[in-house]
Amino acid sequence: MIGRLNHIAIAVPDLAAAAAKYRDMLGAQVGAVQVLPEHGVNVVFIDTGNTKVELLEPLGEGSPIAGFLNRNPGGGMHHMCFEVPDLTVAVARLTAGGARVLGEPRIGAHGRPVVFLHPKDFDGTLIELEEV
Amino acid sequence: MIGRLNHIAIAVPDLAAAAAKYRDMLGAQVGAVQVLPEHGVNVVFIDTGNTKVELLEPLGEGSPIAGFLNRNPGGGMHHMCFEVPDLTVAVARLTAGGARVLGEPRIGAHGRPVVFLHPKDFDGTLIELEEV
Repeated sequence: MIGRLNHIAIAVPDLAAAAAKYRDMLGAQVGAVQVLPEHGVNVVFIDTGNTKVELLEPLGEGSPIAGFLNRNPGGGMHHMCFEVPDLTVAVARLTAGGARVLGEPRIGAHGRPVVFLHPKDFDGTLIELEEV
Repeated sequence: MIGRLNHIAIAVPDLAAAAAKYRDMLGAQVGAVQVLPEHGVNVVFIDTGNTKVELLEPLGEGSPIAGFLNRNPGGGMHHMCFEVPDLTVAVARLTAGGARVLGEPRIGAHGRPVVFLHPKDFDGTLIELEEV
């Protein structure tokens, strides 16, 4: 069912500083800052060739990563996203298996349908599934 | 400098249970359990096509993930590993930039030289570099 690892997302308190470290110290391919008010984050994409790292900084009230950064003020690994061919099929299989899907599918930061799975069902790991 | 994301590692309290969830609920390509006493872990590799997810369970006294699981009993994302062509060059650039490299390069779980970088220097994220 799950296919490629689409990205791993890192929540950071200071996006410009984090992007500079990946660019200057790690020599990574770091993109420009993208402001996504409808998703409550500013994001920088890092292209690793085979997948992406997304650095996320909270934007505005009620950012979906604000709580995480309150608990982890220095930042940390926030979620990982796998591609699936059919989100409806994936959700049906997961709920039949007893996993908790967090809300209804919605359009994610890449313009495609996504859902998130409850981290307590996957060893403390927040998993996003994106229909590709 | 950094190239491909070689893997993302998840520390789990029960490797068999975690592997079953990835296989049965997520339909992932899950390998067999590998026992690595010299690294203090049991590991299951998940092939996502473009990269790997490694599920890690502590093995024996002084496992390098025991402390993490004490702090996070349910498990969680532990580190991510990038490939570099030359570990000596990478370490020199990182230390010149002020990043802390944790100890000397050593042979990692894939039989190649690795180092880890201090998570406080990279937004709470433990980064492994592997020479490939």
